Amino acid sequence: MKGFADIYQLVSQFSSEDADAVAAWAAREPQLTKPAGSLGRLEAVSRHLSAWQGQHPPKLGKLRARVFAGNHGVAALGVSAFPAAVTEQMVINFDNGGAAVNQLCDAFGIALTVDALSLDRPTQDFTAGPAMSEAECTEAFATGFAAVQEEMDLLIVGEMGIGNTTSAAAICMALFGGSAEDWTGRGTGVDDKTLKTKIKVVADGVARHPTDDPLALLAALGGRELAAIAGAVTGARLRNIPVVLDGYVCTAAAAVLHAIRRDGLDHCLVGHVSAEPGHRRLLERLGKEPLLDLNMRLGEASGAAVAVGILKAAVACHTGMATFGEAGVSDKSPG
Amino acid sequence: MKGFADIYQLVSQFSSEDADAVAAWAAREPQLTKPAGSLGRLEAVSRHLSAWQGQHPPKLGKLRARVFAGNHGVAALGVSAFPAAVTEQMVINFDNGGAAVNQLCDAFGIALTVDALSLDRPTQDFTAGPAMSEAECTEAFATGFAAVQEEMDLLIVGEMGIGNTTSAAAICMALFGGSAEDWTGRGTGVDDKTLKTKIKVVADGVARHPTDDPLALLAALGGRELAAIAGAVTGARLRNIPVVLDGYVCTAAAAVLHAIRRDGLDHCLVGHVSAEPGHRRLLERLGKEPLLDLNMRLGEASGAAVAVGILKAAVACHTGMATFGEAGVSDKSPG
Repeated sequence: MKGFADIYQLVSQFSSEDADAVAAWAAREPQLTKPAGSLGRLEAVSRHLSAWQGQHPPKLGKLRARVFAGNHGVAALGVSAFPAAVTEQMVINFDNGGAAVNQLCDAFGIALTVDALSLDRPTQDFTAGPAMSEAECTEAFATGFAAVQEEMDLLIVGEMGIGNTTSAAAICMALFGGSAEDWTGRGTGVDDKTLKTKIKVVADGVARHPTDDPLALLAALGGRELAAIAGAVTGARLRNIPVVLDGYVCTAAAAVLHAIRRDGLDHCLVGHVSAEPGHRRLLERLGKEPLLDLNMRLGEASGAAVAVGILKAAVACHTGMATFGEAGVSDKSPG
Repeated sequence: MKGFADIYQLVSQFSSEDADAVAAWAAREPQLTKPAGSLGRLEAVSRHLSAWQGQHPPKLGKLRARVFAGNHGVAALGVSAFPAAVTEQMVINFDNGGAAVNQLCDAFGIALTVDALSLDRPTQDFTAGPAMSEAECTEAFATGFAAVQEEMDLLIVGEMGIGNTTSAAAICMALFGGSAEDWTGRGTGVDDKTLKTKIKVVADGVARHPTDDPLALLAALGGRELAAIAGAVTGARLRNIPVVLDGYVCTAAAAVLHAIRRDGLDHCLVGHVSAEPGHRRLLERLGKEPLLDLNMRLGEASGAAVAVGILKAAVACHTGMATFGEAGVSDKSPG
């Protein structure tokens, strides 16, 4: 992968859901011993997994989470409640099994890998110039793309990076319009003064980079971990691996693919809606309904990992339940 | 347990959350390596479990689901899309492991027990007289109460009973006012004509039994499985066992305890909000926020079982995460 042309070429190869797998799902689901439709979104989830794995029944044997970490030039502008050193400290915490996502992956049987992306080389301050060059952005994208080459039934993506909700807000404003206030929230929990600074940084960054090219925007306003997420989501689509997106930063990174082609995120479920207000707005723009709404705002793939419980429930019901015929249960009223 | 006086006596013994366990929870939570509050409702859930188990850390080792099944006289009035025989057929399906709740309990490590309550003796048609006598209602309550005598860290309750959303609607209307239309939904999926019949049955039943006595209402309009749920929720409170309520029928049964004393359901979480419209209205009246909103409407404890994934996530994070001190992570900005 040398540059954006190669990435656009990959994205042009995206296919649709697998019609045979969907047909097999649709033939089984109405036979299960329950009123039609009574499992609600669990039914939609098992259908989604069949459709995008391209197999029926869907499987959730190998579950993998990839968390990408990056450092941001804008962190030096005072947009976060935490110092930039926390990115690396948290990577060490991930490696030692002490973070929230470690506990959640253990609880749901998810194998976790953390990729620290050149933490000693923060991106540039995007109010002064592009955060990344085309080469840097492509390299980070390629790291994410390579992360899905191993075998897996499901990919969960997440991120860590002090300053990266500022990047997410700038990307969303550039892609969808609106004001910097619309897209900028308190992230890790900034005070009113820092929020004001953060809003100005977002507005300045977007004004500095007036382009409609989605990958140029990703390079200009993003971060290495955001580019890697876009790469992982791309790789998953090409390998028939459904994805669970996490919160605001993760979804903003993936939204670049939606900007390239409107069906670019059709293989993705959204694990949860974050407490960061821009996330709900972004999901509306993407036409995506989150599985969970638990007021979480941690990142690290934590919301996506909790949602894996719902996916497991969905697959267990679709694949394990008895049919009306097998169970001798009447499937309609005599009246 | 001879009658309602004994039940009122039990409910009068309810205690509050355990202050020491809450204090221990509150001492640990802010030390964990995440921005304060960033796990949202997961934090509230681990606090709840500590508070009502009366221990810190909270435990989720022994998880038990009790599903109570009963038959309803009103089923003969044509209020369901399914024949009354389905109650017993589904109990057999539960026993054979073929229902949704079996798959969900397997997926989340929950031990499931199903109690079929005198299925050969449906309750009386409540538009003609009380569904149950005081003795019958007390007996069913006692069955539920006895169901929590074994050791458990968490109780999940659910129900099966053709016709029982009609009972739930009548109880809610009697307890909270409003019209029969407000509280009556399509249950298993009835057509417009049957919905009209169902609304009339609810209105007639409530008009037939003008009492403010919560247990008299439970007997008049309820069913054996609803009384058993009220009994199980009562028993759990007295034994420091937090409860996860399921959908509309389950919550309506438990609401009788809220009518007896306003803190009567403080030990209960609500697993999900059902697609049955009365459930959302009921939860608003009870001041309860559901953990999940997945458009499910199956009963059988299915929504509560899916919510157990969230409880496991909450306990895993609270108990397993490293503290700032242990991990060497900076917990505030230098600025």
